[in-house]
Amino acid sequence: MSLELVSSARSFGGWHKRYRHRSATLGCDMVFAVYLPPQVDATQSLPVLYWLSGLTCTDENFMQKAGAHRYAAQLGLVIVAPDTSPRGADVPDDLDGVWDFGHGAGFYLDAVQQPWARHYRMHDYVVNELPALIEMNFPVSARRGISGHSMGGHGALVCALRNSGRYRSVSAFAPIANPMNCPWGEKAFGRYLGADRASWREWDACELLAGATERVPILVDQGGADDFLEEQLKPMNLQAAAERAGHPLKLRLQPGYDHSYYFIASFIEDHLRHHIQALKD
Amino acid sequence: MSLELVSSARSFGGWHKRYRHRSATLGCDMVFAVYLPPQVDATQSLPVLYWLSGLTCTDENFMQKAGAHRYAAQLGLVIVAPDTSPRGADVPDDLDGVWDFGHGAGFYLDAVQQPWARHYRMHDYVVNELPALIEMNFPVSARRGISGHSMGGHGALVCALRNSGRYRSVSAFAPIANPMNCPWGEKAFGRYLGADRASWREWDACELLAGATERVPILVDQGGADDFLEEQLKPMNLQAAAERAGHPLKLRLQPGYDHSYYFIASFIEDHLRHHIQALKD
Repeated sequence: MSLELVSSARSFGGWHKRYRHRSATLGCDMVFAVYLPPQVDATQSLPVLYWLSGLTCTDENFMQKAGAHRYAAQLGLVIVAPDTSPRGADVPDDLDGVWDFGHGAGFYLDAVQQPWARHYRMHDYVVNELPALIEMNFPVSARRGISGHSMGGHGALVCALRNSGRYRSVSAFAPIANPMNCPWGEKAFGRYLGADRASWREWDACELLAGATERVPILVDQGGADDFLEEQLKPMNLQAAAERAGHPLKLRLQPGYDHSYYFIASFIEDHLRHHIQALKD
Repeated sequence: MSLELVSSARSFGGWHKRYRHRSATLGCDMVFAVYLPPQVDATQSLPVLYWLSGLTCTDENFMQKAGAHRYAAQLGLVIVAPDTSPRGADVPDDLDGVWDFGHGAGFYLDAVQQPWARHYRMHDYVVNELPALIEMNFPVSARRGISGHSMGGHGALVCALRNSGRYRSVSAFAPIANPMNCPWGEKAFGRYLGADRASWREWDACELLAGATERVPILVDQGGADDFLEEQLKPMNLQAAAERAGHPLKLRLQPGYDHSYYFIASFIEDHLRHHIQALKD
């Protein structure tokens, strides 16, 4: 598992770097980005926040638009941003060129239906292969947090809830909170997982909350003027599920904010502080 | 001169808005972006920073990538970002589709050669038409600062040096500091202005410094690992010209930083503080 450096740029005294590598899990080449704060020169055990982006994104959107480097530099936090699906000519895509399925829309699950099952294993990649690569190649410890936006917010919640002990902290911006019960999720789950809706439950944060064996507190920000709120995101279903399960959830409705990176940039500092609180030491 | 709202998003308690309008100066429709900080609701006289972007950019790059909203919200500063050239099917472009001339590459001057002279009047637009529009439609005063990146850094310096009394503050990131003496500038000036190099001097910051009638202090940041530094940007020529003219210039070489928005984001706070210092009251 060797890393090929794609680009490198100084940022807030640290480094933004992009790497390409062959992913055994996904069966294709993948690019990810990492922000290394200035503290990287002085220690061998920085904590890592994994950021999962939303539909159509790559590793670049968060790094360019969230304004997170400033805070990561202050807090001594490494941030890793993978791509949002397997990529390449060998990886099957939606033939209609839609943006909510296929390339750029891996939904952070492990597909079981053909032709998707061979490559679309983003959950396994994000939870296992990528952290192993990061922890082998960078001066980080195994203190991991996870966050994301929209489809990536769904991904972050599911990664944390399915893998007890693996993440010390979790948060999300405008997550697809109950994918079994919204058009984006039903389309993706139906194709990647098949028609049996019972099998979808292990990829839905609302369903997973009931059976979670540890209670890592969840921070969620949701814009009040987000066009996708009612039909696709359904944060109130997450709130109800957390209440039923007795799971600690802080859901903040931010009036007037939409689904864009301006919303994320406005509140990313709070999220990074939420993570570093659990990740320090 | 009516404004058509293109989009609107909350950001750091304020608003990022994009507008379309018919530009009489440029003879085409133009889109610009404005960041309105939270203080916009409480006062009728906020200061305005004009930001001029570099080659290939639109009004969007700075707003999305510089991380400036956070500081503008703190400081009560309006930021206006115009496009980098006239646009549209009626506006002549380079027929070879190059990125360093024509659309996205107006160089913030007023062309005199055909077929460019009808539309390519970005200096007049940025200095006169756009501020008039802003000051008529938003709760701002006539306290103006100007800054920019690369081609836009050149533009900011030239706007300030050519228009005594119009800007209280000026700064630049990696400006094309001496366009008469670099390939980008020679190509653009030769086509927009014609073969007579004497006429180029009124669009070159190094030349203008000698004759400037007011001494507005200039702040310039330049990345030390910028691939364009030696061939295109030539900040040392600006430093020498400022020294000859006795013009106050703070030129900061930032080791390891490149030409990207990661460089701009890392130091934009210092620039906004430089501007607000001169723009307050």
